[in-house]
Amino acid sequence: MTLADINQGLQYITYGLYILTVADAEQKNGMIVNTVFQVTATPPCVAISVNKNSLTHEVLLRTKRFAAMPLDQTATLPFIGIFGFRTGRHFDKFAKVPFTTGKLGCPIVCAHTISYLEAEVQQMLDVGTHTLFVGEVKDAGVLNAAGLPLTYEYYHHVIKGKVPAGATHQF
Amino acid sequence: MTLADINQGLQYITYGLYILTVADAEQKNGMIVNTVFQVTATPPCVAISVNKNSLTHEVLLRTKRFAAMPLDQTATLPFIGIFGFRTGRHFDKFAKVPFTTGKLGCPIVCAHTISYLEAEVQQMLDVGTHTLFVGEVKDAGVLNAAGLPLTYEYYHHVIKGKVPAGATHQF
Repeated sequence: MTLADINQGLQYITYGLYILTVADAEQKNGMIVNTVFQVTATPPCVAISVNKNSLTHEVLLRTKRFAAMPLDQTATLPFIGIFGFRTGRHFDKFAKVPFTTGKLGCPIVCAHTISYLEAEVQQMLDVGTHTLFVGEVKDAGVLNAAGLPLTYEYYHHVIKGKVPAGATHQF
Repeated sequence: MTLADINQGLQYITYGLYILTVADAEQKNGMIVNTVFQVTATPPCVAISVNKNSLTHEVLLRTKRFAAMPLDQTATLPFIGIFGFRTGRHFDKFAKVPFTTGKLGCPIVCAHTISYLEAEVQQMLDVGTHTLFVGEVKDAGVLNAAGLPLTYEYYHHVIKGKVPAGATHQF
């Protein structure tokens, strides 16, 4: 059983694609992730898995707050590329993107997104290359009820987006 | 911001639907979950969120091993109902379902499923009503490459399945 064999079996797990954002006085940043999922209903808590090398991870450790927005199917590869594919360490990812500031202070991107949630981190679990953050949802809402969620499968087969080497579903 | 408002915003998170199985010498069981996500690529690890009241949770705490299989779109409501909606405490969910036994000893259901993974639990995180289990994938494979993943959205809108009260996306 090679890693390639295992990946064959894992490819049928269904994911959406999300812009994950963080901010404090020094820095705001966003990245594309596929791992946003609700883990409890009462209280409403979501888990996200974030690569330890990312700037978002660095800011999240300071702020313990994040926002996540499901992308819709109108999202183009250039738009996704603003948040994915490159680090925000030397580049303001929000310079040309419409956004508001959420109740917890995280950027809420208003283009090509369907809804948003803002969460406060309650627990963290070190899972090796990534940290699993569990956050209680403090605010959430709908931005565009007519939007159709951009699934990971749609991204690969219709938008024909690539995942950079080593990106682990995050880019 | 009421819980109903928050749930409005959370409804656009994309999920698949999976049969989650566990087994030891005393008991084998399975349930339907929507929370199966890969959290790291190297090594390949997946996270699942399991309600503490479920029999599957009880067995999983003993065995620390689980299998998960994405359902495909041919899964009917009666088939889903074998694993969902009711406890396996007084009912053998596998009596009329074709399955094999995986390398880690978990039942691998072969009907209406696309692929399988078997994982060994490495870490657990108490998230209140549920436990988040992180497992390293030890075996995985494809059962029916032509299958189309049954998403949670498809389940609600095409199969028109219900989620019982208090089920927290697990039934």
